[in-house]
Amino acid sequence: MSNSIGVGLIGFGTVGSGVVELLQDAPSSMRRRKHIDFSLQRIAVRDLKKSRGTSIDPALLTADAEEVVADPTVQLVVELTGADGAFDWVSEALRQGKDVVTANKAMLAERGEELFELALANGADLMFEASVAAGIPIIRSLRNGLVANRVESLYGILNGTTNYILSRMSRGEGDYAEILKDAQDKGYAESDPTMDVSGMDAAQKLAILCRIAFHSTGTGSDVFCEGIERIEKRDIEYARELGYVIKLLAIAKQQNGRVEARVHSAMVPVDSLLANIHDEFNAIQVEGSAAGPQVFSGRGAGQMPTASAVVADMVELLERRVAGAGTAIGDMILGEEAVAITSVEAVEMRYFLRALVSDQPGVLERIARILSEEKISIASVLQKERDLHGGSVPLVIVTHEASEAAMQRALAQISTLDAVQGAVKLIRMEDL
Amino acid sequence: MSNSIGVGLIGFGTVGSGVVELLQDAPSSMRRRKHIDFSLQRIAVRDLKKSRGTSIDPALLTADAEEVVADPTVQLVVELTGADGAFDWVSEALRQGKDVVTANKAMLAERGEELFELALANGADLMFEASVAAGIPIIRSLRNGLVANRVESLYGILNGTTNYILSRMSRGEGDYAEILKDAQDKGYAESDPTMDVSGMDAAQKLAILCRIAFHSTGTGSDVFCEGIERIEKRDIEYARELGYVIKLLAIAKQQNGRVEARVHSAMVPVDSLLANIHDEFNAIQVEGSAAGPQVFSGRGAGQMPTASAVVADMVELLERRVAGAGTAIGDMILGEEAVAITSVEAVEMRYFLRALVSDQPGVLERIARILSEEKISIASVLQKERDLHGGSVPLVIVTHEASEAAMQRALAQISTLDAVQGAVKLIRMEDL
Repeated sequence: MSNSIGVGLIGFGTVGSGVVELLQDAPSSMRRRKHIDFSLQRIAVRDLKKSRGTSIDPALLTADAEEVVADPTVQLVVELTGADGAFDWVSEALRQGKDVVTANKAMLAERGEELFELALANGADLMFEASVAAGIPIIRSLRNGLVANRVESLYGILNGTTNYILSRMSRGEGDYAEILKDAQDKGYAESDPTMDVSGMDAAQKLAILCRIAFHSTGTGSDVFCEGIERIEKRDIEYARELGYVIKLLAIAKQQNGRVEARVHSAMVPVDSLLANIHDEFNAIQVEGSAAGPQVFSGRGAGQMPTASAVVADMVELLERRVAGAGTAIGDMILGEEAVAITSVEAVEMRYFLRALVSDQPGVLERIARILSEEKISIASVLQKERDLHGGSVPLVIVTHEASEAAMQRALAQISTLDAVQGAVKLIRMEDL
Repeated sequence: MSNSIGVGLIGFGTVGSGVVELLQDAPSSMRRRKHIDFSLQRIAVRDLKKSRGTSIDPALLTADAEEVVADPTVQLVVELTGADGAFDWVSEALRQGKDVVTANKAMLAERGEELFELALANGADLMFEASVAAGIPIIRSLRNGLVANRVESLYGILNGTTNYILSRMSRGEGDYAEILKDAQDKGYAESDPTMDVSGMDAAQKLAILCRIAFHSTGTGSDVFCEGIERIEKRDIEYARELGYVIKLLAIAKQQNGRVEARVHSAMVPVDSLLANIHDEFNAIQVEGSAAGPQVFSGRGAGQMPTASAVVADMVELLERRVAGAGTAIGDMILGEEAVAITSVEAVEMRYFLRALVSDQPGVLERIARILSEEKISIASVLQKERDLHGGSVPLVIVTHEASEAAMQRALAQISTLDAVQGAVKLIRMEDL
């Protein structure tokens, strides 16, 4: 096989043009690898009429992604659309034995199993570093650098939009709605921010990491998921008083052959590394059985960080093809040991509860009794001076470790008390 | 070639036995790679009589490292001694076309060039992830994950002993000498701690990183190096007042075809990630041209973190050999573009100066004039109440950016002033 490989690009938007830029202006780290020679054969674009500058031969462009996949000179398909057709294009490429690089996290999280099986069956490889945390080499670190480790846990800040909102709230720059609006105006948040703020984007990324770290077969929808929509300035202030910062965490742990996976707001200690991941940055803390705790951080989105990961995958695939090596991914991901993601109900953690209660005797006692009946023990209680609301006071309780199921039962009961006004706020605590 | 590879181990101390443990109890991430099968053929030990438990066949042991290298069933030599003979054993193995994995940073930093040339000339590979920051996959991240990036700068906390001492000093647990003594008593610091506290250990690791990131040919001795021996509690307190933490940093930057590389104590902003790397942990912050800033952190020493990196290299080498792939390292490291490490004198940074001066009029004016004559402008001055020393006051000056050469000239002049008592303390400032 020659050292040159024909590349077909599906999607020539922000990330796609970043990839082309990196290939055309390869740094010496790439040029030094003598055998690296990508030949861009075909590019599928949404709009053939859009101006593309002078560096791309217009004859390469097509509006039909299937043409890229079918082109016999294309050996490596790079899919960067997020479009509905992506699954069909990628699976057809794999069926033809062509390698694929993709940044499409939703496709991988929901239908990765099928795609990895297709790749394995057809002697092709499917790589996806860019699908989680963009330029941070977390997928290859789990696969290679930490290959001698059993991964015991993963804690990630995997969504830049929510981390940006929470970081600004922590700096006192506004409440949730104000900052979200501002982020939308500046183009940092989508006009429909649901996938981000609901935690679903992070859940999909976590499902992908779980596949690599634990051989789990779970999808994004199997991950317990709660967003940041209900976090208030006041929660952040209480967290600070207790020595914590609120982050949207994606957490997965392997214990006794089960994998727990969940995404939710959590209080993390102010001097932990994850507490110091600010604004749009992402980070993943991995606990390896041999290497111990490791943290990887960087920009989790954006044109060039994402393109950086795509090109790293392309280089690895080319090197494997040139060397005549077999597939890298299928074997590693699929297999008999595959485990499902289990329910979050048995998970034990500490909790922060905040309620507005009537300023009358006996309220704390009744709440304490409910917790005690569920075997949840109280670590501390903060009862502040009277709230602005006439006759009611904010009550904050921090618990010791308790199971999620017990806590949810207790919460349901507490909410029925007459003295408790409105919903009881619950934030989980993680001592990293 | 069969999927099994004969391994010869030189050195069966802490790390060596950790490696054997990981090979014998491989996690599923390794077992899933069907083609991974290491066969331990020969182990060179210092003391043949020492008990090794039951898991190692005593017939594998030899006191002669050369026997391991010469053994025809050994295709992969793992060198973990740090002994004087290491260079000879490793170079002989490479000459025979055998792959080598080593954790020997001094050997690589000082004589790496010769070894990589030998490897390249003989179609062998030399891997060394464990030589820098133990289990943190920084070498392979620079090589692979960030392959599409020009590395613009590296900031590392690369020495666990000094970070442990500075962390404890920052928590007010004692002064330098006390904590060093305690660390020695507990076995955290060597009985002769010179390599660590002088910064030389970090300088060697930085030289290795510069080789990968910048193709530099410099050795550890080419790296400007100042240790932590002169850091006092008072410096740490001033740093805190200014919003900084003192760390021993290893810094390398590429600019205009030059590589600057230096190791010294530095003030870093309290909310930067590197300021939050505590105790024996290591971290490396890499600025990539495409991916942007990335931080990798974890345990930089210890049995299993080091063994984790050694085994990751072994797996990669085996996979390359099984695939019939060429060498990975030589091409990438050596080449025409190799650049030397330049002098630190032209480097520009901000400085913290602390002096004890006579409590008399005109002292600040004279110091300010010296700085001004060297075009060094003052950002702030802190003059505190009288010191315990009769008649003298501590004076602290923070400068704007100035060149190291100008600062050293100014420092020499300031030190000659009668009103300045003792040495002037200089700490460099890095706004990460």
